[in-house]
Parts: sequence; C-alpha cells; structure tokens
Amino acid sequence: MAELVGNLLVAQSGGPTCAINASLAGVIREAGKHECIEEIYGGLNGILGILQENLIDLNDEKSRTIEGLKHTPAAALGTCRYKIDFKRKPAQAAKDMDRLFEVFQAHNIRYFFYTGGNDSQDTSHKIHEDAVRRGYDLRVIGVPKTIDNDLPFTDSCPGYGSVVKHNATVVMEVGIDVGSMATDDGSCCIIEVMGRSAGWIAGGTVLAKRGNPAAAPHIVLLPEIRYDMEALLAKIKEVVEAYRYCVMVVGEGLKDQEGKEIGADVTRLDSFGHPVLAGAAEKLKEHVQGRLNTKTRTVILGYAQRAAGHSASLTDIDNAFACGEAAVRAAVDGQSGFMVKIVRSLREDGTMAWSTGLHPLAEVANVEHFVPRDWVSEDGFMPNEKFIEYVRPLVEGEVKVPMDGGLPKYVTLEKSPVERKLPPRA
Amino acid sequence: MAELVGNLLVAQSGGPTCAINASLAGVIREAGKHECIEEIYGGLNGILGILQENLIDLNDEKSRTIEGLKHTPAAALGTCRYKIDFKRKPAQAAKDMDRLFEVFQAHNIRYFFYTGGNDSQDTSHKIHEDAVRRGYDLRVIGVPKTIDNDLPFTDSCPGYGSVVKHNATVVMEVGIDVGSMATDDGSCCIIEVMGRSAGWIAGGTVLAKRGNPAAAPHIVLLPEIRYDMEALLAKIKEVVEAYRYCVMVVGEGLKDQEGKEIGADVTRLDSFGHPVLAGAAEKLKEHVQGRLNTKTRTVILGYAQRAAGHSASLTDIDNAFACGEAAVRAAVDGQSGFMVKIVRSLREDGTMAWSTGLHPLAEVANVEHFVPRDWVSEDGFMPNEKFIEYVRPLVEGEVKVPMDGGLPKYVTLEKSPVERKLPPRA
Repeated sequence: MAELVGNLLVAQSGGPTCAINASLAGVIREAGKHECIEEIYGGLNGILGILQENLIDLNDEKSRTIEGLKHTPAAALGTCRYKIDFKRKPAQAAKDMDRLFEVFQAHNIRYFFYTGGNDSQDTSHKIHEDAVRRGYDLRVIGVPKTIDNDLPFTDSCPGYGSVVKHNATVVMEVGIDVGSMATDDGSCCIIEVMGRSAGWIAGGTVLAKRGNPAAAPHIVLLPEIRYDMEALLAKIKEVVEAYRYCVMVVGEGLKDQEGKEIGADVTRLDSFGHPVLAGAAEKLKEHVQGRLNTKTRTVILGYAQRAAGHSASLTDIDNAFACGEAAVRAAVDGQSGFMVKIVRSLREDGTMAWSTGLHPLAEVANVEHFVPRDWVSEDGFMPNEKFIEYVRPLVEGEVKVPMDGGLPKYVTLEKSPVERKLPPRA
Repeated sequence: MAELVGNLLVAQSGGPTCAINASLAGVIREAGKHECIEEIYGGLNGILGILQENLIDLNDEKSRTIEGLKHTPAAALGTCRYKIDFKRKPAQAAKDMDRLFEVFQAHNIRYFFYTGGNDSQDTSHKIHEDAVRRGYDLRVIGVPKTIDNDLPFTDSCPGYGSVVKHNATVVMEVGIDVGSMATDDGSCCIIEVMGRSAGWIAGGTVLAKRGNPAAAPHIVLLPEIRYDMEALLAKIKEVVEAYRYCVMVVGEGLKDQEGKEIGADVTRLDSFGHPVLAGAAEKLKEHVQGRLNTKTRTVILGYAQRAAGHSASLTDIDNAFACGEAAVRAAVDGQSGFMVKIVRSLREDGTMAWSTGLHPLAEVANVEHFVPRDWVSEDGFMPNEKFIEYVRPLVEGEVKVPMDGGLPKYVTLEKSPVERKLPPRA
C-alpha cells in the first residue's frame, strides 16, 4: 500500500461520555508519530460542524491540554445528533455528502476518524463507501464510543466502564444510606439510569452487591425484558419484608408486559423520531406508593452519570485512548471502512489483557448488541454471574483527576480556527 | 467539677450524610482516652433504638473499622426520624422520656451524644433538661450534622462541605457535557438538589462556575426566595440565547411568588407532617418546555448527593471528626446542654484554621439558619462573592477512600449487642 500523505480530521458525535476525549487524545498522540499525516484538524460539533467548515487546528493546542483530555469528560470538540439520513431525507443527504467531500478536498483531508455510537458508525460507513465510489483517496476508521455499550463485535465500548463504575458506586452509597434509615415501616428507592433499549448500564450496577444478597441493588430492571407489574410489586414487597428497604435500579427504557415503554412521553419526539423518555422511575414510584403504600424516593442520574469524570474507570480511559491510537495506526497502514474494537484476553496470572482489533463498518452499522437473556436470573430481576464476570474488569482502576480548590480541573481546547476555503454551506 | 464515672452512649439521627460517621469515630477515639468513661455504647437507629434498648458495644469493634468510619457514608449505627413530640403527643413523649432514663439508669449511661440536625438538637436539649429535673447525673452534648447547613451559631454543619463538593462537581461535569452538545436549537438542564427551606446546598454549586459567567450553573434557585415565573423564564431565554444552553440548579423546596412550594405533593405528608416534595425540577421543566419550547432534561440527585462518600471533602470530614472529639472533651470537662459548633479563623498566611466551640442547646433547638439575602444577586438568580467566600474553604481537600475491585470499600460495624436489662418497651 502506497503511503498516503495528507491531513487528518477527527470529530466527535452523539452523547458525550467521560472517555470520548481520551480517544481524541489517542488519535492526536498517534498522529503526531506519522510523517504522512501533515495537519491534525478537529471538526467542531461532529458532521454538522464539518458541513459548516468549522475546523480547528489541533497542533496549535498545548501538549498539557492534550494530556488533560484523558481525564476530561464531555466532548472537547463539541458533538451533534445530526444524521446524514439517506432513508428519510435522500435529497438533503446527497447534498450533505457532496458538501463533505468538498470540505475534505479543500483541506486535503485523507484521514477521517469519527468517534461515536451506532448512528456515527453508520455515518463513517457511508463516508467510506462514498469515498470509494468517488475515487477520493480517504481512510475512514470509526472509533467506538457509547455508554450504552450496544455496539456489536467489540468487547465493550469506551465510556461504558466509567458509567458502570460511577453508577455502581452511587447504588452502593445510596444502598447503605437508605439501609441505615430503615426502621420498621420500610422504604423503597428507585434509581433511574440511562439505557433506552439495552440494559448494559442498569445491569452493571449489580457490582455494588459484591455478592451480598442483602446489599443494594435488590432489583435491577433491564429494557430488554418485559415485566409483569404484579410480579414486580410482589418482588418489591418480598425485599422490603426481608430487609425493610429496597433499592431498585431501572433503565430508562423499561418495558411493561406489552412491550410499551412505561416512562415514554409520546407527545415529544427527539431528532431521530424516538419518543422522549423521562419517567420510568416516576411511573414505577406511583405504582409502589399507590399499591404497596411504601414510602418511595427516586434518584434520576441523567447526564450526571455519563459526565462523571471524577470517578472514571482507568481501564475504560486506557481502552478509549488505545482505540484512538489504533484507529490512526490502521489508517496509516492503509485500512479504511473499519471500526476499532476492544478485545480482552485472560493472562496466565489471572489478570485481564486488553488489545484492539478492527471490524468492517458494513457489519457494525446500525446493529444493536443487547444483554444476553441468560446473563440475567430467570425471573429477570437480577444480572447473574455471567454478567458480573463480564463487567467486573471494566471498572477497575482509578483515574487521578487534578484538583483545584477542591473541584476537578478539566481542560478546554483553545480551538484555533482553520481558515475557511469554501463559500458558506448552501 | 467532680469526675463522673460511667458509660457513654452515642447515637445518630435524621438523614445520613457522608460525614456523620466521622463524628462517631471522633467520639469513640476521644472516649478511649478518658478513664472516667468505662463502656462505649452505640444506640441503634437513634432514640428509637434506645427506647427499645438496642445498644451495641463499640469497644468490641475492630480498630480498623473505627478508622474506616471516617470515610464511610450513611449512618453506621442506623438512624431514625422518630421525635419525642411534647407538643403534639405529650402523653407519649412523657412515657418515652421515662423509658429513656430507665435505659440510661439500667446501663449507667452518664455521657450521651446525639448527632443530628435541628430536631435532634431539640431532643438533646429536652434530655438534658429532664436529666437536671430528675437529678440524674448525665452529660449531654449535641453533635451537629446536616447537609442542609441550617443549624445556627456554627460556622457550618458537618456533611455540608461534602455535599457541596459533590454537587458542584456534578454541576461542572453536566455543564461541560450539555455545553458540548449545544448546537443552534438550545437546551436546558435542571439539576434538583436537596434543601427544603434553606438554600445552602443549591447555593454552594456556584463554585462550579469558578468565576466564569459562561460556565454552569447559569441560574441557581434558592428556597428562601420567591420567584416570579415570568422573570425566571425570561432569564432562561436570555441564557440560552447567549450560550445555547442553560444549566439551572434548583433546591427541592423552590417557592413561587405566593410562597407556595412548586414541587409539593400535598397529598402525602412525612412523619413530621411536612408535604413530601419530589417535583420542583419536573414542574420547572414543564414550564420551560411548554413556554420556551426548549428541550429540557432533569437530574434529580436525591439520596445520591448526601451519600457520596467517594467525593467527600477532607475539610468537612476533619471538622466532623473534630466535633465528635470536642463533644467528649466537653462532657468529660463537666459540660452538659451544649452543641458543639465549628469556628473558622483566617491564619496570617491566608489559609483557614478550624476549631470547635460550644453553644447552649437551649438557643440552638429548632432555630433554622438561612442564606442571608445579601449573599445572593439582586435578581435572586445567583449567589454572589459573599457566598463564594464562605463556601469555598469547606470543599477543600480530598478523602482517600480505599478501593476494592474498582469500587469504594466502606466499613460496617459488627454490632455486638449489649445484654438487655429491662423488660421490652410497653
């Protein structure tokens, strides 16, 4: 494969995590090692910013800032939910694609890295295919990112280990708090976590139990499973009778027996046309208080869980960084149209070894990976040993976040703009 | 003052915090130094457990466990919301008081320490007065504890510095997360924090700004102030127009212009007869989405904020420990009927020096300390420099929590029971 000389463009997409900037740091650090990569540009707010030719020069950033990206949550380049939608808006999509390649050509972009979840991998795949069709020499590698952990073929997704570490910590802490208040009348606390269709985030909180049946969480509800409200209420009653309190973790996309999302507010749709979910815990609370007359409080972690850089998993951050590095190495080696995946293997001494691999974007795009049914107890209320064995290594290790006056010190990019070469987007 | 020889009883009351066990450790460590204190007992679940003669022997606990209490959130002895209510239930209250002194006498309790907030200091005060009236030689010292920070005469309340450190961290992280997603359409995130009548917790999150007007929080709403919804919506609109997103922190007891709690569910009352609050953020969200058509998400931190031992403030934990020690020293010195208070003073080098003092329980009981109006901007939407100067030193320093498999390692007491000497409570 002939060496391809040109510029690099990296961008971030979808919901931020506290590991997405570590992947960005990995891309920048690795790119700096290769002479064939001339300029290192960042696209602001994902595809949306690239369409607007909003590029910044990442070589202008201080080295200290690049290092600080490893422990800084949120998307340092900005992100977007914009999708090049060939199905619903084919004319706009074709126009967008033309504009993208105009931008690539104007700035001699030959290496393109897009960090994101399912939709973003689909975007990367389309760009790769289009580059081939247009005969434009471009290396496209998708970098995985999603707290939802629902990308296929990869062991796990950067961002997931940190959200589990944070949420399991919260569940443990809330558990001993509520337990220490438990007197005879009994109480229930419902902790709502993210996860619209996959239950990886909710399931991971099983780690807070450390194998103790009396410890929180007492019940974990996954979006993959349809729950019968009567069976669930009976289970809660049983737990409250046994321990005088019940801590329940629920994924926001919780379904009833008919498969209906119990917290869905169908009057509002997000930009992808999905109903906005905001109420699984509140809806459950109404049932528990109304039917069991058990005092119930809720915790809705929302954005706080995915942004919790102060309790990130070192394993997760290291894997995220490695994914960024691997993406650049693969592209320099001549690959295109792949997503980086994380691979685990057990060393002889029992510790986990992490490495990376590549998987064709064509097979990744728009495939969702769910929690296997046999990783959850038969009644559906608790992840089992298989889940625990999988998730435990992902939360290991702590990130040392520098502190200033008692609060974390995160970095922001200077964002020195790259001069525009095109007329504004039509 | 003649030396008083006998046993010590310590108990915990009200909502747990992540500093309440540090005060317990302080009591136990200091008590161990004084020969006049023979046994060190803990009462389980506060007054409620003492009435039931549920005492444990704290000298039976491992020294490692006592040390671990310093970084362990929740109430290690268990807590209660039970109140000896002379106003509403005078007959039951008199019976309870008789029973308490039966328990004290049966176990030769001569030193009594009760850790809690306003209601608990009131209970300590009543016990002290009753001991004097009965001629029973008892030293009673209240140990302050409340994340609400609304006890008077003390600089601050153990538990408060940690909840501010945690919540300001969350606000900072959510701020950069939401900011990194902000594209032209604008969005709003409402973070609901505890604080029914005092706005200390909400106000403290101003630290997340670090003086940057563009940084979160953009608006902070305190329960002490009555807000005009039109003025508030105009302010949110102004922030979204300026920054394309708005992060707003709201205390759960938020009031409208008529002084009505906007999130109150008056159909349910807690054991003190207060309406259960659960919806300030949700109610605000309805207004913002409905009136401004701005996409809005909520974070309801609930119990997670007060239990967040993983991000506790070292200053707070040290002060909590010192309060426990000071309580025992005061009692051994012959004092009774006081609450320990925290005192700050500025050293010549500009750092803060913390010490403790005593204040008569008679003046503390049932007095609530609110945020001074002139510590908040004129429009009521942001704590000012006076608040910042006060709160900043309270979040300083980090507690090193031992980790096990990526999650915090908290301790639990063995709870070796003290043999009962009385018939069961009638």
